[in-house]
Amino acid sequence: MPYPEGYRDWHHVKSMVINPGHPLYEAFGGIHHLYANKKALEGYRKGRFPDGAVIVFDLLEAKNADNAITEGPRKVVGVMHKDSKKFAKTGGWGFEGFKGDSKTERAVGNKAEAACYACHTAQKDKDYVFSQLRP
Amino acid sequence: MPYPEGYRDWHHVKSMVINPGHPLYEAFGGIHHLYANKKALEGYRKGRFPDGAVIVFDLLEAKNADNAITEGPRKVVGVMHKDSKKFAKTGGWGFEGFKGDSKTERAVGNKAEAACYACHTAQKDKDYVFSQLRP
Repeated sequence: MPYPEGYRDWHHVKSMVINPGHPLYEAFGGIHHLYANKKALEGYRKGRFPDGAVIVFDLLEAKNADNAITEGPRKVVGVMHKDSKKFAKTGGWGFEGFKGDSKTERAVGNKAEAACYACHTAQKDKDYVFSQLRP
Repeated sequence: MPYPEGYRDWHHVKSMVINPGHPLYEAFGGIHHLYANKKALEGYRKGRFPDGAVIVFDLLEAKNADNAITEGPRKVVGVMHKDSKKFAKTGGWGFEGFKGDSKTERAVGNKAEAACYACHTAQKDKDYVFSQLRP
């Protein structure tokens, strides 16, 4: 699972803010943006993601002040990388997280099945992807 | 001022949520994303935007429910278009807004000087641009 070089130039899929009190706050609290490379963009449109598709979940701190929410430092760069042979055990997707702005410090490693796939398996009919492309 | 065709494939610069109580809520309440074409991206990096630079302010409703904020329907597509001769009276920038998902229904028209430039002029030393490129 390589670091997704250049993802900030990929297509911005959608965004969301997860606030305190949300069941995913501990794991994913903050503002996140999803980015798709060209193959992933094709996957969002077709419903099936080809090998080589990469989706990035870019999670930043959300600063709530003066009736506005602004972006803070990066918490983690989450990555889903489709390789149907290499990652056959987890729906054809590899999962990794890179901490903060690091391109080497990994947050998932060999725990992908429990830490990521366990929830993503609920989305099997969407090829394990939660997000949908916003117009 | 043409509609910025294809801007959803441009570089995502940054995002922000403007909540009720913020002084700009009436005008810009919701979640907005900024997108830059290649010339605008060069401008963000250099501090001066060349002619042809286009910045899009994509404003969506913000749905606040269940301790999360998600994206709702589009409110307006705001556009800044650099043409230093054509728009010499407003800092070299043309300003327009396209209502909702319309590519033809304009929100600014000939009111750009009062509706847009009056505030942007405060950013003269940043070439009239408020946003900064997020890593």
